[in-house]
Amino acid sequence: MIARHPGNPVVRPEQVTPSIAGYRVMGAFNPGAIQFGDEILLFLRVAERVEPRVGRVRMPFYRFEGGRASADILDLDAADPDVLLRDTRGVAYCGREYLSTVSHIRIARSRDGLRFTVDPDPFIYPVNESEAYGIEDLRVTHLEGRFYLNYTAVSRDSWATALAVTDNFRTIERKGLIFHPENKDVAIFPEKVGGMYAALHRPNNSGFGRASIWYSRSPDLLHWGEHECIVRPRDIPWEASKIGGGAPPIKTKEGWLVIYHAKGDHSLYSLFTLLLDLEDPRRVIRRGREPILIPEAPYETQGFFPNVVFSNGVIQKDGRVFIYYGAADESACVALTDIDTLLATL
Amino acid sequence: MIARHPGNPVVRPEQVTPSIAGYRVMGAFNPGAIQFGDEILLFLRVAERVEPRVGRVRMPFYRFEGGRASADILDLDAADPDVLLRDTRGVAYCGREYLSTVSHIRIARSRDGLRFTVDPDPFIYPVNESEAYGIEDLRVTHLEGRFYLNYTAVSRDSWATALAVTDNFRTIERKGLIFHPENKDVAIFPEKVGGMYAALHRPNNSGFGRASIWYSRSPDLLHWGEHECIVRPRDIPWEASKIGGGAPPIKTKEGWLVIYHAKGDHSLYSLFTLLLDLEDPRRVIRRGREPILIPEAPYETQGFFPNVVFSNGVIQKDGRVFIYYGAADESACVALTDIDTLLATL
Repeated sequence: MIARHPGNPVVRPEQVTPSIAGYRVMGAFNPGAIQFGDEILLFLRVAERVEPRVGRVRMPFYRFEGGRASADILDLDAADPDVLLRDTRGVAYCGREYLSTVSHIRIARSRDGLRFTVDPDPFIYPVNESEAYGIEDLRVTHLEGRFYLNYTAVSRDSWATALAVTDNFRTIERKGLIFHPENKDVAIFPEKVGGMYAALHRPNNSGFGRASIWYSRSPDLLHWGEHECIVRPRDIPWEASKIGGGAPPIKTKEGWLVIYHAKGDHSLYSLFTLLLDLEDPRRVIRRGREPILIPEAPYETQGFFPNVVFSNGVIQKDGRVFIYYGAADESACVALTDIDTLLATL
Repeated sequence: MIARHPGNPVVRPEQVTPSIAGYRVMGAFNPGAIQFGDEILLFLRVAERVEPRVGRVRMPFYRFEGGRASADILDLDAADPDVLLRDTRGVAYCGREYLSTVSHIRIARSRDGLRFTVDPDPFIYPVNESEAYGIEDLRVTHLEGRFYLNYTAVSRDSWATALAVTDNFRTIERKGLIFHPENKDVAIFPEKVGGMYAALHRPNNSGFGRASIWYSRSPDLLHWGEHECIVRPRDIPWEASKIGGGAPPIKTKEGWLVIYHAKGDHSLYSLFTLLLDLEDPRRVIRRGREPILIPEAPYETQGFFPNVVFSNGVIQKDGRVFIYYGAADESACVALTDIDTLLATL
């Protein structure tokens, strides 16, 4: 059984202090997760918007000078025919896309994995042009004694995946973009496979197919190649639009367990399981036929972008699996289960 | 002065034997180029279509069994409302893109660089699912004594860049996809820069910006990272849509000389020059203000896709520079100049 925690959401936007005076936190969601010492850390995507003004469309972004971010606003006349409202998440202006919110990464801390305290200050904040529209959806992989953090960097050059590394979750060392645009949903395996580092990722392939899960290898975590598409969306309503990887794969006796997300009809996001061969993860052993989680609770079906469950943080603790997930692009939630239950969904 | 060869096009589709009986060669264009022994070799993109039938839209592709390609056809009713004709190059069917032609790579040979004989058989032919819609626009880089061939691989997973290597231009060793979708216009530098292999490439960034030239590094030519966007389209009509790299950069005393293509208003393709710092090619030294070549000759302004000049093969010989280019997605041409003239355009 996969049980939503009755105390969901475990983090709501109201619990998060804005990073800039006057900004409003619209979402604290899509958390990466790790156990570190006796704490469970969530890495929240904190999405902020600027103060609205009547008749205006106002899009936040950052400028950079000397490595320091300063907040700026693209302030548009809502009546301008060149302004095209997409959905709550963005606007097109003169044919270019802009985001209605700008995100950074904030840590929330817990002893039991259920009750969290949100740090007052950002953990990772945009520092250069490749992050001018924000940083999103962090995954953390514990690998060879260090913690590798990858996240989506958004800018006028679109979305790409950046890497950073830390040993203490106080300071980070940035490693640059490891996957060029358009690429997100990168999940680095927690150990080498066949002598190489390995990752799942999700390039765009707009037009020719539907966005799919790819597998790549690296000698050093910085340079990636040998790209292969390994899992494509099926012709089922849940996967009508695209699929993408979630948290780093979990090693089980039966294979690498992946909880992936699917975007289906009506932009509904759900979660599925996937089992990849331990020695050659390009080989799919089994794949869940039904989602393990679909938007049903009010905090999942209502919110900033309704009908979304999206997981990029999973931990194991005391025989239980904590599936952290973003709900409705607004709050952070957890569902509890165990490995045998997840394997039985396949 | 940059002078079109009066004998242009140097290769026309009529000179090329189809790879499959019944197929028709629509284009022999966008040639990579290299001097090898006493020959100049062009690597033509040979685009073939299947026999048309009244009332049908017929899109060629390959199936693969045991590493062998067999030709197949997606045969559609032209009156089907799910069939959406794009332009001469492709069709969308049920929301997915297909190509009207399927391409492979063919060698043409010359002693003087002006008069070419086309090989009767393909040089590189699709061999796996990542090449099911064909292989296109090869670049060749002479590097540390070997010849590295990169080309665009098109499939239901969109377009990506594959690498192969050869010593003799008879047999090749395939190295897989080095840039995931969507990525093309990859140009590998002819030597290491700062201790690493280097390449220009062109990811897609649909929506946020206009497609631009990126720079990346590799320890081994197979795995690439440290991606940075280095040159974006300017707000000029020639570059209104996008820009992308051409042949491998040419080392000059003033910097790395790049002849890049721009796609502008009305889908017109032109060629520009760019000069990158020798030690840090991420730094742009100078950039041409006017195109060095625009579609003007009849074979450039008329053809399969009109108003295109596109170069991915440049050689130096006896103090002259031979700029090979595809004209109108149909034929292969050459324009003659020298390094000083090109540097003076900057």
